[in-house]
Amino acid sequence: MTYALYYWPTIQGRGEFVRLALEEAGVACEDVARGRDGPDFRAISAVLDGDTAYPPFAPPVLRDGERVIAQTANVLLYLGARHGLAPDDEVGRLWTNQLQLTLADWVDEIHDTHHPLGASLYYDEQKPEAARRSRVFLDQRLPKFMRYFERLLASRPGDEPWLAGGAITYADLSLFQVVDGLRYAFPRAMARVEAGCPGVVALHDRVRARPRIAAYLASGRRVPFNEDGIFRRYPELDLQ
Amino acid sequence: MTYALYYWPTIQGRGEFVRLALEEAGVACEDVARGRDGPDFRAISAVLDGDTAYPPFAPPVLRDGERVIAQTANVLLYLGARHGLAPDDEVGRLWTNQLQLTLADWVDEIHDTHHPLGASLYYDEQKPEAARRSRVFLDQRLPKFMRYFERLLASRPGDEPWLAGGAITYADLSLFQVVDGLRYAFPRAMARVEAGCPGVVALHDRVRARPRIAAYLASGRRVPFNEDGIFRRYPELDLQ
Repeated sequence: MTYALYYWPTIQGRGEFVRLALEEAGVACEDVARGRDGPDFRAISAVLDGDTAYPPFAPPVLRDGERVIAQTANVLLYLGARHGLAPDDEVGRLWTNQLQLTLADWVDEIHDTHHPLGASLYYDEQKPEAARRSRVFLDQRLPKFMRYFERLLASRPGDEPWLAGGAITYADLSLFQVVDGLRYAFPRAMARVEAGCPGVVALHDRVRARPRIAAYLASGRRVPFNEDGIFRRYPELDLQ
Repeated sequence: MTYALYYWPTIQGRGEFVRLALEEAGVACEDVARGRDGPDFRAISAVLDGDTAYPPFAPPVLRDGERVIAQTANVLLYLGARHGLAPDDEVGRLWTNQLQLTLADWVDEIHDTHHPLGASLYYDEQKPEAARRSRVFLDQRLPKFMRYFERLLASRPGDEPWLAGGAITYADLSLFQVVDGLRYAFPRAMARVEAGCPGVVALHDRVRARPRIAAYLASGRRVPFNEDGIFRRYPELDLQ
C-alpha cells in the first residue's frame, strides 16, 4: 500500500502530524508536493480543486487509492485504526481523537502568537499585536496546556506510560511534535514551564527514541523548523 | 437513556452544536450547568477537575453514564453513530467528521474576529485589532468558507440535498448554526455573500424547518445570541 500526502513542501506545519504517524507506522507514502525536482505547489491546488465527491477545504490531504481524506485529526483517525496507532476499542479511539483535537486547539493558539490578525497578513504587519498575543499565550495558555498533559501522564500507572495507556498512539506523536516545536519557538518560556512537567518531557524523550522516529529525525525527510511554519523563532516573542 | 451536557449556561458557544444534535435526535439530556435555579458554573469545574481516566480540557463535555467525552467534534462523532446523525459506513462517517472539523476551524476564526489577542482579554482591550482582523475575515475567509460549502451542495444530485448525501447529519445542523450565528453577527456581510450561495441558504432553511429543530428554536431552551458568545453583534466590525 502506498499513500500520497499533499501538504506544503517547505514547512512541517499540520502535515507533520501525519508524517510522524506514517513514519512510526513504517508505511510508504509519497509526499507529493515535495517533488523530485523541488517544491510542487500545483499538486496541492490540483487535489483541492479535483473532481471528487469529498473535496477537501485545505491541506493536509491524504490519498489512499480513490479515497481522499482531509483534516489532520480525521486523517489520523483513519491511519490510527489501520496501523496500530490507536486503541482497538471505541473508548480508546474516542479518547485518542479527543486528545488530538485538544492538541489541535493548542497548535491553533501557537500559530496565532505570530499571526493574531490573520494568516494572510505578514508577521511584519502585526508585530505589536503578536507581542501582546504571545504574552497572554506564554503567561496563561502554555502553562495550562502543559499542566493538563502533565496531569494525564502523572496519573498513569508505570506500565502505561502513554497518553492512552500501554501502547503508543498518534496522540503521543503529536504531543512530541508540539513540545518539539515549542522548544524551537519559545526556548526560554519552555525551559521555565518544562521544569514542572517531567512527565511531558519524558514522553517527548521516549517518542524521540523510537527507532523509526529517531531515523526520521536524523534523515533529510524531516523539514527543518523555519519561520514560515507554525512554530517560528522570533526571539522578541519569547519570555524576556 | 439520559445524557448530561456540561457547557457554559449563558451562551450558545460550541455547546450549541451538541445541543442541536441532541434536539434533532430527540434524546433526553440534562443541560447541567443551566441549573434549575439559575446558572451553575461549579458543575463545569467539577467535571473538568473530576476523577476520571479521561479528563476533559474544556467544555463542552458529554456524560453518558460512566463515560466522559469532550471536544465538540468528538462528542458529535459519538452521538452521530448512536442516533442516526451520521452515515453508517466508514467513508461517510469520516466525511461527516471532516466537515465538522472544517466548520470548527471556521468557528475559531469567527471567534477571533472579536478576540484576536486572546480570549482572556476583554473586547474593549482589543477593539482596533478586532476591526483589522474582521476586515480580513469578511473580505477573504467568509467568502472562501461559504463558497466551499456552496460548491459541495451544488454538486449534489437533487435527491441528496444534505452535505453527506441523502440523509441529514450533524454536519448539516452545524452548518445551519454557523450561518445562523453569522447572520446575527455580520448581517450586512452575510447579505452580500449569501446572494451567491443559494445552496447554503436553502440548507439553512431546511434545517430550520425540521420539526424538532423548529420546536427547539421556538422554545426557551435555545439561549439567545448575545455578546458573550462566539457570534457577537458588534456593528463596527460588520461591513460598512
